[in-house]
Formats: sequence, C-alpha cells, structure tokens
Amino acid sequence: VWGGHLTLSEADRLTDHGGVALSEARQAIVEMVTGDVSADQFTGFIELHIEQGPTLDTSGEQIGVVTDIVGIRDMKVTFDGQQNHAGTTPMHLRRDAFQAVSAFNAALNERLRNIVTPQSVWTIGHVSLHPNASSIVPGRAVFSMQWRDADTDRLARIEQVIRNTASEIADDHGMKLSFGTMLGLEPVAMDSRLRSALEAGADTVAPDNWRTMPSGALHDATNVSRLMPVAMLFVPSIGGVSHTFEEDTAEGDLVAGVRVLAEAVDRLGSMP
Amino acid sequence: VWGGHLTLSEADRLTDHGGVALSEARQAIVEMVTGDVSADQFTGFIELHIEQGPTLDTSGEQIGVVTDIVGIRDMKVTFDGQQNHAGTTPMHLRRDAFQAVSAFNAALNERLRNIVTPQSVWTIGHVSLHPNASSIVPGRAVFSMQWRDADTDRLARIEQVIRNTASEIADDHGMKLSFGTMLGLEPVAMDSRLRSALEAGADTVAPDNWRTMPSGALHDATNVSRLMPVAMLFVPSIGGVSHTFEEDTAEGDLVAGVRVLAEAVDRLGSMP
Repeated sequence: VWGGHLTLSEADRLTDHGGVALSEARQAIVEMVTGDVSADQFTGFIELHIEQGPTLDTSGEQIGVVTDIVGIRDMKVTFDGQQNHAGTTPMHLRRDAFQAVSAFNAALNERLRNIVTPQSVWTIGHVSLHPNASSIVPGRAVFSMQWRDADTDRLARIEQVIRNTASEIADDHGMKLSFGTMLGLEPVAMDSRLRSALEAGADTVAPDNWRTMPSGALHDATNVSRLMPVAMLFVPSIGGVSHTFEEDTAEGDLVAGVRVLAEAVDRLGSMP
Repeated sequence: VWGGHLTLSEADRLTDHGGVALSEARQAIVEMVTGDVSADQFTGFIELHIEQGPTLDTSGEQIGVVTDIVGIRDMKVTFDGQQNHAGTTPMHLRRDAFQAVSAFNAALNERLRNIVTPQSVWTIGHVSLHPNASSIVPGRAVFSMQWRDADTDRLARIEQVIRNTASEIADDHGMKLSFGTMLGLEPVAMDSRLRSALEAGADTVAPDNWRTMPSGALHDATNVSRLMPVAMLFVPSIGGVSHTFEEDTAEGDLVAGVRVLAEAVDRLGSMP
C-alpha cells in the first residue's frame, strides 16, 4: 500500500490463511497507529539480506552488493488435446497433452540459448495433467511458465519466444492453446549513489572478498523503490538454501554485513 | 477368482467405492447361489465387444476379429533432484525433476522407434511434481509409465529401454532414480479354432468389410483364457470413444456382430 502497488481498500479485502481480512487485523492495532509516514522523511532505503541462493556460498565471498533486482513474469499455459484410452488409441492418432508440454519444454530450452544470460532463469514448476491417470492419454495440461531477468527488453524477448514456441507446438500436436493472465514485476536497478557507498564499504570490510551481483529473488526494496532511492547487500546463505528451517548465515559473515552497512551509512552521512 | 487370478479370500477383502467388502456383498445373494461352475461344462468362450478404439470407425469396416489381447506393463518412476528457489538458483546448478521427466520422455520416444510396431503403445498419463509451485524448482517427480504390446518379448525389450533411458537421464540430471512395483498382464493369443470360425462368419456376413486386429484394451477373455479356449470379435465404436456416455455402435453393425457370432457358433457346432 505504501509503495502504491495496491490501494488500501484492495489490501483490506485480502485475507490470511485463517480467513482474517486485513481490515479486521488493522482494527486490533488501531490504538498504536500514529498516522501516515511520509516518504519525505527518508533519504534512502538500504536492505541487508541473506542471499537465498548459492552464489556467495559457492565462491566463498563474504558480501554481495546488489546491482539490480530482477523482474519477473509468470503465466499459466494450457494445452487442450483429446483425452483417450491408453490401450486402444494408436500413437499416431493421439493428441496427448503431456507430449505437447514435453516437446514445448525441449524446444524452449533450445531456442532460449541465444537470448539469455547466465543470470536469466526460466522454470516450469507446476504441471497439472487431466485426468492424470496411468491408463488414460491426458487430454489437457495446465502448467506454469515463470521467467526472470534484470533487463526489461530481454524479459519481453523471452516472452515472445515462449508464445511462438507454444503456438508452433500446439499446431504440431493438434492442441488448442491458451495463455493465462501474465503477472509481472519490473526489474529495479539499485540507486547508484547508495550502491557506490556499499561498494566502498565492502572494499574496506572485505577487500577482494566481495562481488556485485543481481538479485534473483524479490525483496522489499522492489516496492520501496517507488518512493525513494534503494540499494541492497547480501551475506552468504550456508548451503545456498532459503525458506527452510536450515536457512542460516555464519556469524562472521553477519558481522561483516552489518559493518559494511555502517561504513556505507557513515560515508553517505558525510557527503554534502 | 474363477480364472485363478485371485483367491476367494483375497477377493473377499476387496471393497467397492462405498466400502462394502465382497464378502458382505456375497451374503446378500447367498440364497441364489447354486454351487461352483465347472469350466468343463464349456468348450470355449467367444466375446462380442465394442472396439473402444478408432480403428473400425476410421476404416469404415463392420467387424474386427481379434488376433491377440495385448499384454500390459505399468510402473511408477520417481526422479529425486533438489527443490530450490526459482529466482536465485542458476540454471546450471539446478537439479530440476520436471526437466528430467521431459528429457526422459523425449529420449524414450526416440529410442523406442526401432523396437515398436504400429500396434505398440506407451503412455505417461500421470505426472506429479513436488511441491508443484510456479516459483519453486521441482525437486521430485513421480510419473506413470505404461506400455502395451501383443508380444511378450517386445514388452520386455521396451522395459529394458525404459530402465536404461531413465538411468542415463538420472545420471545426466543429478537425480536419484527409483522404480515402483511393475504390474503386468501377459498377452493372450486367441484360440485358432474359434478365431477361424469367426473369420469364416465375418466373411459370410460382411465380405471384404472386416479385418483381423489386436485388442489394445483388456477384456474378460484375458482371465477366462486360463480355463478354456477364447476368441473375440469387435463392432465399431462411433467416433472411436469408450467409457463415456456417448459410447455407441450403429444398429446395423450390432446386428452384423450378432450374425457373425451365430455363423461362427453354427460352424463350430457342426464340426466333429
């Protein structure tokens, strides 16, 4: 709401897993509210976060200064073919939706090669076949297609390849094709002044032991960037894991992260 | 039970969708039971069935005389990789179970080409990814692999290709591989004497308008074949559909089917 992504009335209608709406939850703390917080009170926002990925853990470096938070695109894709008997339907007469998904995936991996960078990612994480039974040729497949990149143009080029490839595969396999609503958040470049202060801080605290890197995960800084300059730094995630009870960062790395933050804020405070 | 596939005590423990065990259901008709039926009372079993597939509907032929009921093999296959964040895990570090299933499927289709006949079928009808979410690289995939063929040796050769291909894909993609229990029913060749009588009958009732064909679906004749000679004939399924409310056969075709049956029985009865 503060970042302008949702209106308060939209947010008030959202509910938690227990079915409690935000509007009700807000009533419980109404006595503690002191009024609107103006973004003008702040000169910037610096976020310190565990990396949530394997880059620093693998390289052995202590600090990552974030260059961009990647943008994300996400949509459902549906292939509709013909459900049929897995014993009596000859292979050449099948319109098998799983075969279409598999062929789409193979073709997509091949075609994206010349477009992506080592930081680009794309994922089919959800696949739902219908009726999903071992003796039935699946007539329908709904699957998720998600991709992330720090460059808006590249996100759009990837989208075009996805749409064209799905369309060709649908024609080849006798499928009806439909795309769901595309969800997306734009990439956010970190503010250069804040980022320079973090880089100088990293060079003081962990000389030759830090790197610049994009963030593949979304962070609070994405939304706050609508209101003020933002920057981020990462500390290593042990084993590269995140969103699990094992998520942890070595104490020495945590201390280094806080020291970089202090160095950066000190520099920014003494600038004119 | 009669065919010796299950013992009566095994069957008695099976329940219907309402939870009623066969042992209970049998009590309801116990007054009507006249005692065991000996297979010796019968000289053979001829089954007339709707084709459940598109072969006769497509060719416009009226009768199919079955040569073999295909054998079936069915097993679950599991790839275990590494569940991970779909934003922060670089493509080259992923152990994505969906990618493994897709690569397995593509390689299998390619490798089976030189082994199968136009009557062989193989199906991945069930796929279950874990955790099956658009923002998470899937760490596990469980899927069904089913194949059917009229030849026992070919069923075994297909099995070997499936196991070898899955094993190579697992190695390539950093997956742990496991196979579930393999379920199977052997192919059943129709009795040549009964089949010849059906062919002669078809030639009388529908000259130049019938064919011999394997059955890709399982039928009662599979189990009865343990007790006596069996044979089958098919009539066309309108639109090639089955196990649906639309399943139907044209009246003229049904009459032809019954007439072929009568001709065949007449011939068999007058043989020495």
